[in-house]
Amino acid sequence: VTSFNRVAIIGVGLLGGSMGLALKKHRLADSICGIGRRESSLDEARRVGAVDNTTLDIASGVKGADLVIFATPVSRMRELILAVAPVLEPGQLVTDVGSTKTTIVAEAEAAFSSGVDFVGSHPMAGSEKRGPTSARDDLFEGSLCFVTQTDTTSLEAVERISEMWSALGARVRRTSPDTHDRIVAQVSHMPHLVASSLVNELDEDMLETVGPGLADLTRIASSDPDLWAEISAENSALIAQSLCNLAHTLEDIAKLLEKNDIESLRNLLQQAKIKRDNIIKCIGK
Amino acid sequence: VTSFNRVAIIGVGLLGGSMGLALKKHRLADSICGIGRRESSLDEARRVGAVDNTTLDIASGVKGADLVIFATPVSRMRELILAVAPVLEPGQLVTDVGSTKTTIVAEAEAAFSSGVDFVGSHPMAGSEKRGPTSARDDLFEGSLCFVTQTDTTSLEAVERISEMWSALGARVRRTSPDTHDRIVAQVSHMPHLVASSLVNELDEDMLETVGPGLADLTRIASSDPDLWAEISAENSALIAQSLCNLAHTLEDIAKLLEKNDIESLRNLLQQAKIKRDNIIKCIGK
Repeated sequence: VTSFNRVAIIGVGLLGGSMGLALKKHRLADSICGIGRRESSLDEARRVGAVDNTTLDIASGVKGADLVIFATPVSRMRELILAVAPVLEPGQLVTDVGSTKTTIVAEAEAAFSSGVDFVGSHPMAGSEKRGPTSARDDLFEGSLCFVTQTDTTSLEAVERISEMWSALGARVRRTSPDTHDRIVAQVSHMPHLVASSLVNELDEDMLETVGPGLADLTRIASSDPDLWAEISAENSALIAQSLCNLAHTLEDIAKLLEKNDIESLRNLLQQAKIKRDNIIKCIGK
Repeated sequence: VTSFNRVAIIGVGLLGGSMGLALKKHRLADSICGIGRRESSLDEARRVGAVDNTTLDIASGVKGADLVIFATPVSRMRELILAVAPVLEPGQLVTDVGSTKTTIVAEAEAAFSSGVDFVGSHPMAGSEKRGPTSARDDLFEGSLCFVTQTDTTSLEAVERISEMWSALGARVRRTSPDTHDRIVAQVSHMPHLVASSLVNELDEDMLETVGPGLADLTRIASSDPDLWAEISAENSALIAQSLCNLAHTLEDIAKLLEKNDIESLRNLLQQAKIKRDNIIKCIGK
């Protein structure tokens, strides 16, 4: 694995902070500069050892970095990409950790000049917690990380970013930005809205009757509403399509129940059990 | 709490076995007879200490029992209620642990002669495991147990069954059989089918991308398909209605996404978060 002399992390929250800690743990960065908007967050990030030095000035922060990591909320990325583009120089490698990819990759490829390599990343790791004090050096271990590749992406750059994530313990999956967004709509964004809807459908007098099954099913409904509203907005068309597909499936099951077709219902439950058991084998839980 | 001289448990699987262990732990039964169809299960139940003696003959098993517990799958209850009815005598108290209540309670009330008190129970406890070797003496601790009451239920009988469940560590909720079935359709049966559907919607190449959120969300899709097909059949009309309600909600959310109404989406996520946080307060997890 090639290591980096100087890494700049823009945004030192849970993900940015954890990247700093993990890069240091695996000795992949000689020095890490944390860039942010508030001194207090930057101080915390330095205190927990996620970064070595900090700055509020994005231009001076990224100067001379051989790796620049965008780790802000997706909603701020566009603005930051445009702000950073003029100061980046050929040879600098840039990635991000945003949970949607089509828009970000397109904007970065359009904004950055030739010789500046952008490779999108999406580590599927996180927690309900936020901020640098929640950062962990093992956050990415055993998780999946998408790395995006387009017609114009440098293959060497994709290799370096993929190796970095592997070194931090993630399983890497290379996809196009489009395929990424379609997959995460189905495996993450849509299910999130379903979990929240299952909660909203409950009458107040049902709350005390929730058992361990529904408690697990709805755990992610306790996540940050602002963050998930943002993520949903970024991938809205594909999520809407997934929601409609699921709605039709549920209506079909309702019809099976109404005509008492229990054999079809059993087959459907059986098929789901086999697939769910396979998921657990795949992700090693 | 009044204890029982002789308890008969029909069906010594996870729930029946756990009732035996829990009744003994709390010294609520002098002697427990396990009744089943297979010697091997009965032997296992005796070996783990869930019952003191066993029989394949249901009539001799329930004879002289001051408490009879039906702990078989719901699909076998009707037949067993009819088989037991002629041998039960006034003064015997009968309950069950079935996960639907309207049909079972109506059938038992119709079949049992005057003086035999039937009170439906539904302890919302269990696991993916089955059989007497999975039985635990603390299975009901901290769980919710529904106890049903109708116009004809003896209040004293309801009190005794409620006290028993409280003594085993369950929070007791008294409802009518109808209300019970409406609640469990919403908090248990319908979410189960949603979890299975979320799994079935995944393409094979998405399985390895499932993160901790969707893994939790779909955990119950790994449950026994036969058991859940049966449960769904017993409560089909109310589950179908819940599924259609959810389907409409999901289509409404898809419309919000299509017109980019992120403010409404955020409100909906916020409302769900507050309610989900309340659930956790209610059920003390």
